[in-house]
Amino acid sequence: MIVRASPAAGSDAAAAEIVGIDWGTTRRRVVALDARARLLREWEDDAGMLGVSGRFAAALDEALQRVGPVAGHALVLMAGMVGSAQGWHAVPYVEAGSPLETLAQRLFEVPDAPRGLRCRIVPGCRWRGEAGAVDVMRGEETQLLGAVALGRRDGGFVLPGTHSKWVALRDGRIERFRTYLSGELFALLSHHGTLAPLVREPREDAAAFADGVRASGRGALSQVLFECRARVVAGDLPAASARDWLSGALIGTEWHDALQRLGRPSAPVCIIGTAGLAALHLRAAQQLGVPAETLDAREAQLAAWGALARGLGHSPSGRRSTP
Amino acid sequence: MIVRASPAAGSDAAAAEIVGIDWGTTRRRVVALDARARLLREWEDDAGMLGVSGRFAAALDEALQRVGPVAGHALVLMAGMVGSAQGWHAVPYVEAGSPLETLAQRLFEVPDAPRGLRCRIVPGCRWRGEAGAVDVMRGEETQLLGAVALGRRDGGFVLPGTHSKWVALRDGRIERFRTYLSGELFALLSHHGTLAPLVREPREDAAAFADGVRASGRGALSQVLFECRARVVAGDLPAASARDWLSGALIGTEWHDALQRLGRPSAPVCIIGTAGLAALHLRAAQQLGVPAETLDAREAQLAAWGALARGLGHSPSGRRSTP
Repeated sequence: MIVRASPAAGSDAAAAEIVGIDWGTTRRRVVALDARARLLREWEDDAGMLGVSGRFAAALDEALQRVGPVAGHALVLMAGMVGSAQGWHAVPYVEAGSPLETLAQRLFEVPDAPRGLRCRIVPGCRWRGEAGAVDVMRGEETQLLGAVALGRRDGGFVLPGTHSKWVALRDGRIERFRTYLSGELFALLSHHGTLAPLVREPREDAAAFADGVRASGRGALSQVLFECRARVVAGDLPAASARDWLSGALIGTEWHDALQRLGRPSAPVCIIGTAGLAALHLRAAQQLGVPAETLDAREAQLAAWGALARGLGHSPSGRRSTP
Repeated sequence: MIVRASPAAGSDAAAAEIVGIDWGTTRRRVVALDARARLLREWEDDAGMLGVSGRFAAALDEALQRVGPVAGHALVLMAGMVGSAQGWHAVPYVEAGSPLETLAQRLFEVPDAPRGLRCRIVPGCRWRGEAGAVDVMRGEETQLLGAVALGRRDGGFVLPGTHSKWVALRDGRIERFRTYLSGELFALLSHHGTLAPLVREPREDAAAFADGVRASGRGALSQVLFECRARVVAGDLPAASARDWLSGALIGTEWHDALQRLGRPSAPVCIIGTAGLAALHLRAAQQLGVPAETLDAREAQLAAWGALARGLGHSPSGRRSTP
């Protein structure tokens, strides 16, 4: 469990009016907010969808206990895989194209919430393109709503991670998006198969990362992945640097592919991520001469909970009004 | 252990003059040949490089016992990962570009062979391209020598498998080659991660395979892999068909990438593989309108052992002459 310093922690802590839970496959990030959506307390643990064995109501009750005092009329907002077929309730996707700011009107009301709390799940988003292309997200739509709430309504966005999302927003609507299996491939290849022995005992190597980014522009990913091994075997790449080379190849593949699909962006691409991963994407962007900037994923998430609460009529005074 | 019907099996079997072992990471394919390199007996098992725990001399002796009578002056030829740093002896690579028919002059003499037999390992091949590109093979160079011995000296070749090789031959020399991690990725994704649950209980679905080939031409592989999941989640692809879709995406990626690198070939691409995998590649080629034909991997391997034995001066009469 990671507990961050919280402005109002302690035994006489203020009761939360809003609880936001980013409930993913393997992680759960919980924040307690006051009626103005200001942060009171927050923590995260590994009680993700896979970690609670289907006992979501009990897991939520336990989370509420741990987050400190919660007002009896508090609003509980949840996003992510908790709303998938393997989650608590299978919440139908919203089709891409509608304004993210209307997500508050599309929330799923949880019928079996503990303590009789008002408890809502944000629906995921589905996009359909030409020639049968289709993509889905659960959780990232909420961070994107946060970006919109923070004034970023247009342009290209990257939300790196296990399943890295590349999204085009236009006037606060998701125009289209594509997902890359980058983080999952990195984990798979680090633990199994031919490349796994190479990425043990790694050391940081910015040049290897940059070289991986370069290599990823020259061929299909399945070929580039083998090249990591070939370079080590041929003595051209130290085994200790293979991890960073591989990371560069996977992240570089995203940037090269996105540039090919979308052309060079006129405005900076916005990277919404945790510090470490966002920094790697920023390096890849700089190397390829693409303007980019970062937005902290936590900030975006907090802005999203506030926007959803306001959209539900959770007024700054703390009283609810009809939306 | 797989034992094929052998022309001369039995207690009064003819003594082998040549034993060929394709000794890979996980498999070992052993053939016993007469002095004219005609097949006497053959079998294969899973005593690959990883299965013999470094005891190569003992493992070879056991293989020779199992293959039936072997002449005291027999020639033992080995190819594959047995010649790698993790194998029996680390045999230096031969650089691409020299005639494959001269491989017989580049064989590594095993100093610790059992029974004092003449025992040789075929060196792998290394290729260096522009901008630091590098690739390596061990084993495939021998199959390619077989193709050359069978009269196929020029054009594009695919040797599909765990690490799929795409090779350009010119006048019996390897001009360049690239490796794709396709088979390994397929195995990893089938057993671990997000896609694994989808590829359980698969059924054959040629249309899903074709659709995977098509999808692979539209984006980076890491994106196409997630699309497999997105299609199932969106209800566009039955989970039971995901395995064939994935297979199409991985094989299609090779063909699209190779076409982009090399342009449309004027002569048929030669697929050297086992029946099942070669048939899938042939389907992908036909779908993309690329001329292609198959050459059975076993035939190529047998031709290679014969070519190597002849190159070493193993004359048709069964007596050795100086090369």
